[in-house]
Amino acid sequence: MKTRAIVLFAHGARDPRWAEPFKKITERLHIALPEEEVRLSYLELMEPSLTDTVSDLVHQGFKEIAIVPLFMAQGGHLREDLPKILAQLREHYPEVEFSQTSAIGDAPELLDAIAQWVINTTRS
Amino acid sequence: MKTRAIVLFAHGARDPRWAEPFKKITERLHIALPEEEVRLSYLELMEPSLTDTVSDLVHQGFKEIAIVPLFMAQGGHLREDLPKILAQLREHYPEVEFSQTSAIGDAPELLDAIAQWVINTTRS
Repeated sequence: MKTRAIVLFAHGARDPRWAEPFKKITERLHIALPEEEVRLSYLELMEPSLTDTVSDLVHQGFKEIAIVPLFMAQGGHLREDLPKILAQLREHYPEVEFSQTSAIGDAPELLDAIAQWVINTTRS
Repeated sequence: MKTRAIVLFAHGARDPRWAEPFKKITERLHIALPEEEVRLSYLELMEPSLTDTVSDLVHQGFKEIAIVPLFMAQGGHLREDLPKILAQLREHYPEVEFSQTSAIGDAPELLDAIAQWVINTTRS
């Protein structure tokens, strides 16, 4: 049985098409990591929430949950909102080991990839 | 003289640290594209705005301006706000050729890179 889950955490938006890239990342991970449970959750405006997703995973028996914010940068949502949600989750589920990664824009290799994409996409 | 400019367009946030990844992407482009003018602008909460940036570039003589939204996905900001700003800019500066790229999450190679980063960063 799987015991470890990865929960992607995106902002959410009113337009349902906004979720497409995040769903595609989730699909790539389902293929690349068949032995792990990978879920997509949102801060607001879309479902499921991070809290509902974690609740479901905990009730299914997951003991290790890695939260990966799919945000470009760390502003109020990652510096204030997410720590509050995570503190509540840790209080509710003391038996679960939670971890959290940094933002997309904190990864030098992703900044390199984005800069290269800008070069390619603007090349006339 | 440079005639072509690339204007990166990010959302903006209250926390000044939020801008760091976007500034790093801009720095990478300054190094990689010394022959192009590369600027960083924001939709809200940070300065300079896209409109002010374009105004400055036009007054400096730039005739081709490529706008690159550094947004993960296309929601209301890219589907509604940006087209309105761009329509106004085209009306104000009919002599300038504007182009606009898609979002980060529309580029399959960036979705691949982000998925790989999730794999690497959650590997225990």
